[in-house]
Amino acid sequence: MVSEQKIANVSFESLLRIFTIPEGPDSTLTQIEESLSQNLNEFLREHIVAEEKPLYEIEKDFSSAVIPEQPEFVSEHTQHLLDTLVSHSVHTSSPSFIGHMTSALPYFLMPLSKIMIALNQNLVKIETSKAFTPLERQVLGMLHKLIYSQDEPFYQRWMHSANHSLGAFCSGGTIANITALWVARNNALRADGEFKGVEQEGLFKAMKHFGYEGLAILVSERGHYSLKKAADILGIGQEGLVAVKTDSNNRICPQDLQLKFEQLNKQRIKPFAVIGVAGTTETGHVDPLREIAQICAQEQCHFHVDAAWGGATLMSDKYRHLLDGIELADSVTIDAHKQLYIPMGAGMVLFKKPDAMKSIEHHAQYILRKGSKDLGSHTLEGSRSGMAMLVYAAMHIISRPGYELLINQSIEKAKFFSELIDKQHDFELVSKPELCLLTYRYVPECAKQALNMATPEQVTRIHTLLNELTKLIQKKQRETGRSFVSRTQLNPTRWSELNTIVFRVVLANPLTSTDVLRAVLQEQREIAQDSGANLVTQIERLAKQITLAQHHSAN
Amino acid sequence: MVSEQKIANVSFESLLRIFTIPEGPDSTLTQIEESLSQNLNEFLREHIVAEEKPLYEIEKDFSSAVIPEQPEFVSEHTQHLLDTLVSHSVHTSSPSFIGHMTSALPYFLMPLSKIMIALNQNLVKIETSKAFTPLERQVLGMLHKLIYSQDEPFYQRWMHSANHSLGAFCSGGTIANITALWVARNNALRADGEFKGVEQEGLFKAMKHFGYEGLAILVSERGHYSLKKAADILGIGQEGLVAVKTDSNNRICPQDLQLKFEQLNKQRIKPFAVIGVAGTTETGHVDPLREIAQICAQEQCHFHVDAAWGGATLMSDKYRHLLDGIELADSVTIDAHKQLYIPMGAGMVLFKKPDAMKSIEHHAQYILRKGSKDLGSHTLEGSRSGMAMLVYAAMHIISRPGYELLINQSIEKAKFFSELIDKQHDFELVSKPELCLLTYRYVPECAKQALNMATPEQVTRIHTLLNELTKLIQKKQRETGRSFVSRTQLNPTRWSELNTIVFRVVLANPLTSTDVLRAVLQEQREIAQDSGANLVTQIERLAKQITLAQHHSAN
Repeated sequence: MVSEQKIANVSFESLLRIFTIPEGPDSTLTQIEESLSQNLNEFLREHIVAEEKPLYEIEKDFSSAVIPEQPEFVSEHTQHLLDTLVSHSVHTSSPSFIGHMTSALPYFLMPLSKIMIALNQNLVKIETSKAFTPLERQVLGMLHKLIYSQDEPFYQRWMHSANHSLGAFCSGGTIANITALWVARNNALRADGEFKGVEQEGLFKAMKHFGYEGLAILVSERGHYSLKKAADILGIGQEGLVAVKTDSNNRICPQDLQLKFEQLNKQRIKPFAVIGVAGTTETGHVDPLREIAQICAQEQCHFHVDAAWGGATLMSDKYRHLLDGIELADSVTIDAHKQLYIPMGAGMVLFKKPDAMKSIEHHAQYILRKGSKDLGSHTLEGSRSGMAMLVYAAMHIISRPGYELLINQSIEKAKFFSELIDKQHDFELVSKPELCLLTYRYVPECAKQALNMATPEQVTRIHTLLNELTKLIQKKQRETGRSFVSRTQLNPTRWSELNTIVFRVVLANPLTSTDVLRAVLQEQREIAQDSGANLVTQIERLAKQITLAQHHSAN
Repeated sequence: MVSEQKIANVSFESLLRIFTIPEGPDSTLTQIEESLSQNLNEFLREHIVAEEKPLYEIEKDFSSAVIPEQPEFVSEHTQHLLDTLVSHSVHTSSPSFIGHMTSALPYFLMPLSKIMIALNQNLVKIETSKAFTPLERQVLGMLHKLIYSQDEPFYQRWMHSANHSLGAFCSGGTIANITALWVARNNALRADGEFKGVEQEGLFKAMKHFGYEGLAILVSERGHYSLKKAADILGIGQEGLVAVKTDSNNRICPQDLQLKFEQLNKQRIKPFAVIGVAGTTETGHVDPLREIAQICAQEQCHFHVDAAWGGATLMSDKYRHLLDGIELADSVTIDAHKQLYIPMGAGMVLFKKPDAMKSIEHHAQYILRKGSKDLGSHTLEGSRSGMAMLVYAAMHIISRPGYELLINQSIEKAKFFSELIDKQHDFELVSKPELCLLTYRYVPECAKQALNMATPEQVTRIHTLLNELTKLIQKKQRETGRSFVSRTQLNPTRWSELNTIVFRVVLANPLTSTDVLRAVLQEQREIAQDSGANLVTQIERLAKQITLAQHHSAN
């Protein structure tokens, strides 16, 4: 072993060393690896600079498009990565990073990831993955059973069947959703008489054959933005993504869904898929899946559930009822890199019927031959890594009851936080948590009172100022680097669907304590009173006018 | 630290331990990690069972769809993974595994991968990736410059521009190709008068607006199978993927390309993209890119180059001329997990013009806001890991001249192997290497002579037997586990385009020595004479008949 490696004069012999001789135990790289293995959280706390550096400053370190002509020592480059990259990365696993769907990860996944990467399998085909292929099929089987609860003979028959597939593993929820809609589109426009199917002849001929004027995908107004990409790439067009109205809890209105079907049918536009969301990205709400399923059955339409975020709730016997009806879906998206605590890059789509994916099956001469068990014949992606191994290991080490505990504590922590917010005189809960997401905003106490007696025009004025204030607080809090919440824009019925900017909080990190939550609120209050003082004063002035006017008119 | 971890009675406290306390230094997992860090090749040789276990046997270990109700100790499960998974995985980095595009990896990438995974950034947005965003943009800039060689001000202006993009990082070549064709399709059917663009209104309305009867993508007969997926998902239909004839070197015929344009234009079918292949998957040949570019310019058609495999050749000053004309392409696919020696999951697509991706740009409320530098507004995928960091590190540590050496030795090793095959009395080179891929087959000496004097009917009979023999040898060699070559089916002009099954060899692993290559041939010869004896006897009998008959007719 050598402690300092460099392709000194770039000879082939020196190059071979990097393929054959590992870094020595005293090398910078080994030291760093060890220190993060021993205490990741401390390592990140030490190495990530808390206070935010402006992006244009960071960009200066990444400004050259020239591939270096001079090799660097591994240790030297590792130090460079620490100084320029790691120090200005995001501490996504921090207990106070509660703005997005990233969390702390179980420790055992780090060495396992290294093993996975060292094995460097390619799951597109058996010849480059061998046992990883049945492993991935088993993982898909486990998720399928979690959703659909089919019996033992079902899985014995289909899980490893060469010509069938219970789903596809992919890099994430977007590809999973696109895969589901691709299957749904192709099944809706399948071979029929002279027509050889949309996969062969394309959309234009399909539309003419079936006499449709257009295609549509129905989804709630709160559907994930990636569905627009899906509608675009599949040739439907974003206008074909029809938004169904939601109720005050951000859940799809079945009546409006029914109405949309009627309207589209009248226009000879074929709705080929309805998407129910199980855990919206912005508020974590779950659509009424059972009711949607009934409408889909009656309309003979593919029913897809985007449970990228919420699907893991099925691990909880206590809360899986929140996703009641998901077992009626034709397909379901789940991201293991969200609430199954797997590193980035582990999405899955499951199909109720083992032959659903036939409509997108493909073969080639040198791989994916007919009858082979190559996973690549049913995936949108080609070459893929062995990420399924991490899901498999986590399922066995954490086990179902372990996941249940994680899910339950997240949901209950969100409930705690929503109650905490409700108790504050100067915060307003905007969306109640159903899973572990909630949204809220800072509203100075006098403005809370004023909003209840204000005219619509006055409400709008206060809202505009509050939106500015929320943005300012969120940005400042992020820059300060102690904690992070995200923000989004909602249109709550309570506020006449006015654009309302809110803090968005995701409470999946098991290390986030109630103390952290208290501190987040306190920090936000302080930022409001400090950096936001100007806006707060404006809001208070306006609020005072309103309450005074109200007082006068009451007298 | 603890040496044995288990969520004993599945309490929340015991669960928290897996998030906060790493495996101890004596634990099985740590030991395994250390042993592979110290000598990966030895570790794999020791742990991967050489002789192949039948797939149905392996499947027995992965047959339950039930998510365990009992947690397992980390160490216990690690041992289980070693026994059932690792032992029956594929030693893709072995010097004698020369059948697919996987290779040994530089050592430093393993600890760096672990750092990347521990940081768990999500590159869809700045808020979860920070410095990783400019880093990824720089990597895209480097690859862009490698292809297009624009000047310094170009990269200073566009590389970090919020509203532009030099390309997209993705999981692999398939997604990269789909992204390029998606962009090409949307640019060909862009907003025009009343028409709001295909991304808004969909393909059916687009076709009616422009008065087309169909859309087409032109590619050589040797294009990658994933292009069929692309044509399918984009709504073009696989029939819209028009195969252009190739010459005896598997390169596209420009005359036929020109002819196809004329035929399609007559039918009012719009060819919106031509794909040139720089390194076909089966034989490694490069299409005449400059000539294709000229035709595309004249026909105003998007020119995409699939250089997933061959793109890395641009690193070599000595051989980059093989890809002459690539700089004229509108877009190029390159996989870093192929000849840039990065672990699985690092694909890229580059666009010549910084505004090309506008046609697929998308935004959302909570992320990818307009004007943000979030990478997710220009990618097909959503959440993505920080793989770009590995490409960045390898570029700096190996450097351009280091990559050149790796590329050169691969190409030169393939040349050596092709000459070695040519020298054998009982092997036949089927496709000469242009990059580091070649194909060949085992042909008993007497059959080689007989083939030269046989009637077409006799040639077909010998070919059929040889195909059986090639399949048998390839399968047996794989099962024995000493070395691995893949196989595919070609239609060489030399053999009147008969279906010809061949061994396919990819020589990218720098650890593959000439001795390994000699041993591969020797093993194949032995298998032919041993397991293949029956077929060889049939071939020899037939050959003897042919030569005897020839001899008689000559007398």
